[in-house]
Amino acid sequence: MKLHEIAQFIGAQLHGDPDCDITGVASLQDAIPGTISFLSNSKYQHFLADSKASAVILDLSESQNYSGNILRVENVYLAYAKVATVLNTSPDPASEIHKSAQIHQSSQFDNSVSIAANVTISENVTMGKNCYIGPGCVIEKNVSLGDDVRLLANVVLCHDVKLGSRVLLHPGVVVGSDGFGIANDRGVWFKVPQLGSVLIADDVEIGANTTIDRGALENTIIEQGVKLDNQIQIAHNVKIGAHTAIAGCVGIAGSAVIGKHCGIGGGSVILGHLEITDQVEILAMSLVSQSIKNPGQYSSGTPVQDKKTWNKNNARLRKLDELSKRVKQLEKEIKNSQRNSNQDGDK
Amino acid sequence: MKLHEIAQFIGAQLHGDPDCDITGVASLQDAIPGTISFLSNSKYQHFLADSKASAVILDLSESQNYSGNILRVENVYLAYAKVATVLNTSPDPASEIHKSAQIHQSSQFDNSVSIAANVTISENVTMGKNCYIGPGCVIEKNVSLGDDVRLLANVVLCHDVKLGSRVLLHPGVVVGSDGFGIANDRGVWFKVPQLGSVLIADDVEIGANTTIDRGALENTIIEQGVKLDNQIQIAHNVKIGAHTAIAGCVGIAGSAVIGKHCGIGGGSVILGHLEITDQVEILAMSLVSQSIKNPGQYSSGTPVQDKKTWNKNNARLRKLDELSKRVKQLEKEIKNSQRNSNQDGDK
Amino acid sequence: MKLHEIAQFIGAQLHGDPDCDITGVASLQDAIPGTISFLSNSKYQHFLADSKASAVILDLSESQNYSGNILRVENVYLAYAKVATVLNTSPDPASEIHKSAQIHQSSQFDNSVSIAANVTISENVTMGKNCYIGPGCVIEKNVSLGDDVRLLANVVLCHDVKLGSRVLLHPGVVVGSDGFGIANDRGVWFKVPQLGSVLIADDVEIGANTTIDRGALENTIIEQGVKLDNQIQIAHNVKIGAHTAIAGCVGIAGSAVIGKHCGIGGGSVILGHLEITDQVEILAMSLVSQSIKNPGQYSSGTPVQDKKTWNKNNARLRKLDELSKRVKQLEKEIKNSQRNSNQDGDK
Repeated sequence: MKLHEIAQFIGAQLHGDPDCDITGVASLQDAIPGTISFLSNSKYQHFLADSKASAVILDLSESQNYSGNILRVENVYLAYAKVATVLNTSPDPASEIHKSAQIHQSSQFDNSVSIAANVTISENVTMGKNCYIGPGCVIEKNVSLGDDVRLLANVVLCHDVKLGSRVLLHPGVVVGSDGFGIANDRGVWFKVPQLGSVLIADDVEIGANTTIDRGALENTIIEQGVKLDNQIQIAHNVKIGAHTAIAGCVGIAGSAVIGKHCGIGGGSVILGHLEITDQVEILAMSLVSQSIKNPGQYSSGTPVQDKKTWNKNNARLRKLDELSKRVKQLEKEIKNSQRNSNQDGDK
Repeated sequence: MKLHEIAQFIGAQLHGDPDCDITGVASLQDAIPGTISFLSNSKYQHFLADSKASAVILDLSESQNYSGNILRVENVYLAYAKVATVLNTSPDPASEIHKSAQIHQSSQFDNSVSIAANVTISENVTMGKNCYIGPGCVIEKNVSLGDDVRLLANVVLCHDVKLGSRVLLHPGVVVGSDGFGIANDRGVWFKVPQLGSVLIADDVEIGANTTIDRGALENTIIEQGVKLDNQIQIAHNVKIGAHTAIAGCVGIAGSAVIGKHCGIGGGSVILGHLEITDQVEILAMSLVSQSIKNPGQYSSGTPVQDKKTWNKNNARLRKLDELSKRVKQLEKEIKNSQRNSNQDGDK
Repeated sequence: MKLHEIAQFIGAQLHGDPDCDITGVASLQDAIPGTISFLSNSKYQHFLADSKASAVILDLSESQNYSGNILRVENVYLAYAKVATVLNTSPDPASEIHKSAQIHQSSQFDNSVSIAANVTISENVTMGKNCYIGPGCVIEKNVSLGDDVRLLANVVLCHDVKLGSRVLLHPGVVVGSDGFGIANDRGVWFKVPQLGSVLIADDVEIGANTTIDRGALENTIIEQGVKLDNQIQIAHNVKIGAHTAIAGCVGIAGSAVIGKHCGIGGGSVILGHLEITDQVEILAMSLVSQSIKNPGQYSSGTPVQDKKTWNKNNARLRKLDELSKRVKQLEKEIKNSQRNSNQDGDK
């Protein structure tokens, strides 16, 4: 692509040679001639001067010292993402129905669908156009997929799960496994049938080995544009609002309702039967044990100290209630002694 | 089923029409005529009056204001679970040995066994009656399964693993992977062979993508009726006592011994070589670093605050030892000043 | 093996019968005649006297009271690991290219390679000698493997991933899934293409269901001899230094750089864009939110207390900043009252 075509594509102001050829993207430090790079984090500013990139995407504040070709935009990272998408040369999977795929005769698909080797598809599965089902995937009965859905390798969709269009599931994702429903019968656990399903709306992306359980009675719901990282656990009857992003290793317990446009940091745990409103950001390794009614940032992660210092502080934490009482006692004694000394003064 | 048949089945006291037809279960708010619902959490009491359910399972305390058909029991959730089980219409997998399953000739099974597509079964695998092996499962050498075992899709059982009867493994479960055994040889790690196996007793259920490592020398042991949620990691030589339930994302380190009838909250970490007695409940996101010798509830999870407040508190936590010393110093000074003022008084 | 052969193999000092036959390893308590055992943890000292092992590996300090055959070494656990390796009789997988494996014609392998059932291998995959690809594995385009690589069941290697020699991946591992790269476009997430790959050096072992994302532009890098436990999440552009060991359920966020010879405890979270120097040990369930520049041990895990005590302490923690201010106020008042009483004394 010519640089002026890219500028037009991302709505950038172009400074430099409009006819410069661009064939790929690269980081500032690893760029070679013919690539376009970007600077969205001022931490990497020092790589700018020596970069071999043929052009750089910058925002208004960062371009003073740079004499190369510039595409100037407001949202650099987004502009980069769009350029990287259009120049992406990652290999496409083969377009075929592989002879080793085991597809039940009742499941009929559009000609534009690709199904890789060793796939298993059960009865009454439906798909829109241009879907790709990767090697080793398992799709159980009555599952329905929209258009342009991509399941990478070894994904499992359990019966009756419904996916919208442009849903992207990375390897090892499981959707629709039974929720953790058990009723106690004098000490012995009795399994509660999990009769709901999972509904995943359009434009959802789910990271490798993440699991989403089916609802107990109603459905587990993942709304439009939600982005889930790897190794996340979503329990039964959870609802995640549109355009919420959740980082790796998060666990969300049953019937929790997460709002729209939220962000949840890695390793956090959200307890069940609570509600988090829209526009809430939970920082990494936090525990949410009550509903959150106001937008904003919340945290309970405790950063490391050197072990000796932490052990001392932690030993005190284990007696913090006692310490608080001692402070209260001190306040009382000070007050008394002040009253006494005032009385002394009065004498 | 007629309502009186259900009443008899769960041992309920029936108030209303014994001949009412019930064809399924539903939540109070989503019920349609013909379904039976339940009220086990008083939080949902307000849905009762307007529910379209043809009958409701209730306990003694909740039924005053309801004029519809009632099944009265003590343990509502358990009664509901039993009704939901008997009315469950989730699709059964096909009963067949799929032609694409790769089964070693030395592994011979009862006629009642079903094996789905793209399964791999190695030498000397044995199974009881009515087992179901889902698509993409891998069963390695010398594995043995009891009766009525169900492995859903893409489950892996490594060599020599032994499962009892009525064991249910959800998609992506791995049982019998090598434990994390490494010996340090002047900075370089040397792998310690993992020579034990995993024994899983009857009526165990294991959630999606949970992993259970084989023992180093002895076996990793999961006792009868244990229920494990998704994304759990059980290390080598762990022993989990009968009827213990563990929520998602828990990690249990090597050689930890968990008692019977315990409950472990989501995201908790149990360190290795320690013992937790029976009837212990660990709340969510807790760290167990020492043995627990007394039954009861234990916790160390820290719930979120708004970020600004938490940052202030956390900054103080990092100097809590110093704060404690300052309080001690204050106590000393108060004591001294009181002694002095008493001496003054004596003068 | 004769005991004197084992002694020579591990460089041990032999006390006892050099011709004693040894056929396997066992723990002290479960040993039967013909096995060799070891004592590396003094906690198990009391099993020594009654052990039925035909020989025991011991260090210099533990052998006083034992009259059986002894192999004396400095690093007992390492010596045991070497003996267990040489005596290991775990079943080897079949050596074959299984007829059900789906291998693209452009991918050609050495005769010494074994490929199990239901494997999928795409275009232009290369392998060294003696590799083993387990059942259900998926290897996408342009992946390259060194010699003696072992992928156990249902492992997924995404396109362009590169593995060194003697790499061992346990079941369900995913390497090369897309990193969690999203750019915000007025509230809606736009996917950032993940164009880097994953490079895994020689002698790396990765536990069951662990996931390693491909880099966004540069590569994610796992250096030589790194050992990863189960259920770990490694984000895009992370670099893990040689001979570092990471326990289960750890999450490492994007672009974090971990040094060589580090150890990271189970359930810990390492935030992104930070650097941890060599020889750092992070204890279990810790949060690393800033770079660590000095070797040593670090921690922020909070061990459980009984629930009532913890709730009290935690309630105080939520007001710790206020408590600190109260202590400061007390110090001020004490100082004032001391000044006053000194002035009184001066009078």
